[in-house]
Amino acid sequence: MIKIVVDLLGADKPQTELVLGAIRAISENKDLYVYLMGRKAELEDFLANVTYDESQLEIVDCTQEITNYDDPVDAYHDKTDSSLIKGLKMCRMNEDIGGFVTCGATGVVLISSILILGKLNATRPALSVVLNGRNDKPFCIVDCGANIDCKADRFVDFARLGVAYMKTLGIENPTVATLSNGIEAGKGSDVIKEAHELLEKCGFNFTGNIEGKEVLDGNADVVVCDGFAGNVLLKSIEGTAKVVFDDIRRAAAGASDTQKAQLEAFIGRLEPKFDYNNEGGAILLGVKKPVVKGHGAATDKTVYNTVKIAYGLAKNNLVEKISEEFEKK
Amino acid sequence: MIKIVVDLLGADKPQTELVLGAIRAISENKDLYVYLMGRKAELEDFLANVTYDESQLEIVDCTQEITNYDDPVDAYHDKTDSSLIKGLKMCRMNEDIGGFVTCGATGVVLISSILILGKLNATRPALSVVLNGRNDKPFCIVDCGANIDCKADRFVDFARLGVAYMKTLGIENPTVATLSNGIEAGKGSDVIKEAHELLEKCGFNFTGNIEGKEVLDGNADVVVCDGFAGNVLLKSIEGTAKVVFDDIRRAAAGASDTQKAQLEAFIGRLEPKFDYNNEGGAILLGVKKPVVKGHGAATDKTVYNTVKIAYGLAKNNLVEKISEEFEKK
Repeated sequence: MIKIVVDLLGADKPQTELVLGAIRAISENKDLYVYLMGRKAELEDFLANVTYDESQLEIVDCTQEITNYDDPVDAYHDKTDSSLIKGLKMCRMNEDIGGFVTCGATGVVLISSILILGKLNATRPALSVVLNGRNDKPFCIVDCGANIDCKADRFVDFARLGVAYMKTLGIENPTVATLSNGIEAGKGSDVIKEAHELLEKCGFNFTGNIEGKEVLDGNADVVVCDGFAGNVLLKSIEGTAKVVFDDIRRAAAGASDTQKAQLEAFIGRLEPKFDYNNEGGAILLGVKKPVVKGHGAATDKTVYNTVKIAYGLAKNNLVEKISEEFEKK
Repeated sequence: MIKIVVDLLGADKPQTELVLGAIRAISENKDLYVYLMGRKAELEDFLANVTYDESQLEIVDCTQEITNYDDPVDAYHDKTDSSLIKGLKMCRMNEDIGGFVTCGATGVVLISSILILGKLNATRPALSVVLNGRNDKPFCIVDCGANIDCKADRFVDFARLGVAYMKTLGIENPTVATLSNGIEAGKGSDVIKEAHELLEKCGFNFTGNIEGKEVLDGNADVVVCDGFAGNVLLKSIEGTAKVVFDDIRRAAAGASDTQKAQLEAFIGRLEPKFDYNNEGGAILLGVKKPVVKGHGAATDKTVYNTVKIAYGLAKNNLVEKISEEFEKK
């Protein structure tokens, strides 16, 4: 059994909507067990009218909720009966729990995960997102928002985390590239130039610099960058795709219903793949259990996807794979 | 008469193709005069079969060409009869020349422009690109590649340059935002946080931080960032749009010819607007004449667009507008 803790509070949508994502995930994966962190009485009432296998879940009552207005450190100390803190502590204390899923406030998730679960191999944990590029080829961006001002050696840790992550997706010898403002080795900030030199010596399948325009072409499996550049990259991909799709629909505003339906058939399926919030979430790599963070505007579909990601990471031994990468140091 | 110097060498395409862009620009603007820098004999032969107003152009013979393999400083010293260096020197020496257009090597253009034309108001020149976002609302990114590692006060200069630039497009009181990894004032690298504080005090129409996903929404007229982040932003916009359009075409691969033609009608016109290389070029702001730099893969259309941009910037007194912004200091 793969056991995953699912935090159902702290997102924009009510727990009774989000829980349906978890129910769908367990119904599709018979070896998945979920601990649902939320308000027990309300969840029990709601689930009384839903069909699911009772042997695959347990509701854990939480009397507190963490919001975006909570200070991360205060929340960690004071809201010990919140779904987020209580859930992370359950993860820490039970060796057989494989991971944690939340749509809570990013800052609180980052800090509480580090404080409660602890760092793996003394690295600083990084946020990573897997996107599907051209021809649906997956690639990951590390870091995309946790570590803003980074020294060069941090990028080597990001590469190790990303390589381990891509290995859980079945990519055997992932290529690694540094995000930069030109593909030539001499391009980049001082830190990127230094990171480039370090990465060349570390035994990675390192392919050099990658530019923003090639990232989606899938020219590298792991794109390493600081959390500032990674965030700019991730969000501009998301924002650009959104504007392109919106503009296309506007261009077709005067078309017939048949033509519009046809257009939707061409573009409708593509749209979600450029929005990582729809597809899943960011993974906090480098803590002792996989933590998957969905967006605050998450729906039951987000919870379904994030639970599946956490399940996959636990099943494919992310934490062991990360340790292996760090042992090569 | 607005006089613009057009460098026809150093790009991938031959001068005989590129010159057609300049010819189209003068035929559409009767107060535009161009100096065509290239191999005179070949250009004369070619233009013998083209209709244009001879009083609107002059061919200036150049015996040397600068390529991407040239070292910028060596090229500046040694290739004095190249279209790029000779053209910039003509700009410097003739007060009535309003600007310079080139598709040559970026590094050489940057350094030679600074060395020959000189800096305006002692600022470090920045590369800027105007993109059209949602609903075709234009906005500019400063810097998008010239200044990689920047201190906070540089961002204030970038804002001045961008504001002056947007004023030449008729935007009276352009909004300014700092590109960051979150909209909250506390988000960003140490440099961005400091820049944010400085910009709040400088009398700009400053709206705070902007994220990568909102840039194309046109939430700010001027997006200030260092050349590293600006380059990541610009290129990821370009790359994402390209992949989205390619993916849509692939999704429609099995459709009928009529359906494909319909789809092209919806998306064909949108495609160029996300590719600044098609639309025009990057502007070097902060030198004593406007320098517009088209991509090396430029076509006659690129030259047409870049000449029109340089013409507009000269006509709308970019240089005076920049000086005005710096006088407010």
